[in-house]
Amino acid sequence: MAAATVTLARRIARSGVLFPRSSPQVWGQASRQPPGLLSTQSRAFSNKKILVELDTSSGVATMKFKSPPVNSLSLDFLTEFCISLEKLENDRACRGLIITSTIPRVFSSGLDIMEMYGKSTEHYAEFWRAVQEMWLRLYGSNMVTVAAINGSSPAGGCLIALSCDYRIMVENPKYVIGLNEAQLGIVAPFWFKDTFVNAVGHRVAERSLQLGLLHSVPEAHQIGLVDEVVPEEKLQDKAVAVVAQWLALPDHARQLTKSMMRKAVLDHMLAHREEDIQNFVNFISKDSIQKSLSMYMEMLKKKKS
Amino acid sequence: MAAATVTLARRIARSGVLFPRSSPQVWGQASRQPPGLLSTQSRAFSNKKILVELDTSSGVATMKFKSPPVNSLSLDFLTEFCISLEKLENDRACRGLIITSTIPRVFSSGLDIMEMYGKSTEHYAEFWRAVQEMWLRLYGSNMVTVAAINGSSPAGGCLIALSCDYRIMVENPKYVIGLNEAQLGIVAPFWFKDTFVNAVGHRVAERSLQLGLLHSVPEAHQIGLVDEVVPEEKLQDKAVAVVAQWLALPDHARQLTKSMMRKAVLDHMLAHREEDIQNFVNFISKDSIQKSLSMYMEMLKKKKS
Amino acid sequence: MAAATVTLARRIARSGVLFPRSSPQVWGQASRQPPGLLSTQSRAFSNKKILVELDTSSGVATMKFKSPPVNSLSLDFLTEFCISLEKLENDRACRGLIITSTIPRVFSSGLDIMEMYGKSTEHYAEFWRAVQEMWLRLYGSNMVTVAAINGSSPAGGCLIALSCDYRIMVENPKYVIGLNEAQLGIVAPFWFKDTFVNAVGHRVAERSLQLGLLHSVPEAHQIGLVDEVVPEEKLQDKAVAVVAQWLALPDHARQLTKSMMRKAVLDHMLAHREEDIQNFVNFISKDSIQKSLSMYMEMLKKKKS
Repeated sequence: MAAATVTLARRIARSGVLFPRSSPQVWGQASRQPPGLLSTQSRAFSNKKILVELDTSSGVATMKFKSPPVNSLSLDFLTEFCISLEKLENDRACRGLIITSTIPRVFSSGLDIMEMYGKSTEHYAEFWRAVQEMWLRLYGSNMVTVAAINGSSPAGGCLIALSCDYRIMVENPKYVIGLNEAQLGIVAPFWFKDTFVNAVGHRVAERSLQLGLLHSVPEAHQIGLVDEVVPEEKLQDKAVAVVAQWLALPDHARQLTKSMMRKAVLDHMLAHREEDIQNFVNFISKDSIQKSLSMYMEMLKKKKS
Repeated sequence: MAAATVTLARRIARSGVLFPRSSPQVWGQASRQPPGLLSTQSRAFSNKKILVELDTSSGVATMKFKSPPVNSLSLDFLTEFCISLEKLENDRACRGLIITSTIPRVFSSGLDIMEMYGKSTEHYAEFWRAVQEMWLRLYGSNMVTVAAINGSSPAGGCLIALSCDYRIMVENPKYVIGLNEAQLGIVAPFWFKDTFVNAVGHRVAERSLQLGLLHSVPEAHQIGLVDEVVPEEKLQDKAVAVVAQWLALPDHARQLTKSMMRKAVLDHMLAHREEDIQNFVNFISKDSIQKSLSMYMEMLKKKKS
Repeated sequence: MAAATVTLARRIARSGVLFPRSSPQVWGQASRQPPGLLSTQSRAFSNKKILVELDTSSGVATMKFKSPPVNSLSLDFLTEFCISLEKLENDRACRGLIITSTIPRVFSSGLDIMEMYGKSTEHYAEFWRAVQEMWLRLYGSNMVTVAAINGSSPAGGCLIALSCDYRIMVENPKYVIGLNEAQLGIVAPFWFKDTFVNAVGHRVAERSLQLGLLHSVPEAHQIGLVDEVVPEEKLQDKAVAVVAQWLALPDHARQLTKSMMRKAVLDHMLAHREEDIQNFVNFISKDSIQKSLSMYMEMLKKKKS
């Protein structure tokens, strides 16, 4: 954990963000800055890959993924995601979070394969720790979290959605969502699985994970992978309404209840975190897996051209 | 546990009941008394808050909550409930139990807030132990237990229903059921949660508990919180028919199977029972929680007037 | 385990099978024998109770239960089942398995009561170890396993279906499926229960097991006990198509995912295997249980005549 913190701190420093982990109050101070002209009730900070807007009147922040072409979860993306989550978590003006995408047709394409191909074992370990960190912060967040899924959301993108409190997806016959790792010849780690089982139950998860299924929107709704389906133009209003419904509850009671529901799965991962990193590094370093990924990337290239 | 037993024994003595825990056969002897004139096959004993009728021909007892205004689970109510359960459990003439209410529109309103407000820590501890005891006896009962839910059933009232083998609820647009603790700023304990998850699954429980939802009857049916919905006039017959269906199985096999399904959750609570009492006492003694309860009671008073 | 292996090896020897456990390559060699005239792409080996056909072009084997009158799981049947599973598991030409019946209207009637009545405790222990072994091999199989359920499938027959990856059942108003042990006055062991809960969830399993329910085909479909229902004439094609769908995934990823989903339940049984045998032996040796079984067999005899 110590090493992880150092690494994260280093990356935070590298990313040019001014608010180090040990001083969350800095961000609190920032909230006392005079607001801009266009809105007296919102403030925004934009980094390279995620735009974060906080509506201080409602206490609801919106994270907009804006990392072309497909919001893949690179190490940089994940670092920025973790930093943004941490800032919002520590900001008393923020109680709810909506996560959505500015990229057409894609919510997030999941883990960036480039981070898993042809790199050093140290890099793989650092990358995997960042994936874990993202999930730990989001699945364990004290905020009300709503995924406004306005595009396809495979693998790690699906995990982000699953880690929220509520999932709303746009009706679109082209959009799909699911943990399709098996299709790529890799295996979703146990805590992806646990998060999935908590949402859809053991049997649905067993079949979906083994087949690496990408579910259509109606199917995702039917199996409980998403809670609600809306037309694109109603997504934002719906997400705002859902957050408001959840925020109507006393924070303290809601947070303790959320923690009670998710603690077992979070604790299980924390207890096996280093082991999980080692497993990932060993697995991804295998020649056979590197070859699978290479073939998959070739296929993606051909698809594009 | 020793202290708990002493306390329960003391309360049993106080309640004027003649059958102490160590002599269940006394109740067995009572069953050999000549029956009354009106019915040769049933006998009843009424205490202050619950009427218990046993039909010795079918081996099915009915418990009727009769504690105005809303059958709240006071310490006295819980004590009487535990004593009645113990007597029936130890009576060989009794194999099944139907639980229902004589109060219009209310099955049970749940834990009595008066027991949680402005009292001593000793009182809170005694009260919480009685809540635990009720659940341990009902969820772990060897009898076939059917909840005939003829009114609203929030919080602890919902727990009673969830602890039975089968739940039948009356069709009525005004009735609601659910674990709505979060609405009151308090948190359902882990064993309420476990019992709920065993009935409706993890995802439904997670959302319902965080939002403190009180479900309409059709919704409760749809999520599996109740097993069957009937018109008021058919409730009693339906409950009798369901108990008969379950009693058609050999007792021994059915009881061992029930124990196999519920043992993990019962054992988990028993292993953390004292800790759970301490948690409750600490939580409920907080100024902020006492204030929340006070506000809630004010709101209830205004609603009435 | 050592004793178990010895016993199994002895039974393998007794059964006249040529391929001992320690030499799976023998079977591999057999596959290099010249194929028969009728098919250049399949080979079959038939023992007394199960016909096994392997289509080497698709890599899919079919096991056909052919043990009149009702495919009951006798010690001989189970031994042959385990040996066949082991051979297929070790055969690189085999990646998928379809399990079906050649007996009209019956998939498998479950454990053979004759093995549980009037025998020695040693016999009961050997029999129960064989039941465990069958489940361990099937539930933990690396192959894609599909149950093509073309007849009724109570108790142990239902367990075989539940242990596969996918269950297809024939539409027929006379067919039923379920873990109906409680109806016979016996109790499904904890690992039957765990397998069932993994398929249908806790609540459905709790009610179904306590009532010993035999579900109609539509009901079994509705509660998730079977995944798909087809007319009899489409069963074979459907099973082949489903296996092909699952085999389209990379074996390694699919197998690791399957193991991740089922490991907890398999490990739990392995950790309590000897205790479970002892429990079974003690339970089944009881006079009251022997009497129940005797009455049940009398009832079956009367039914036939």
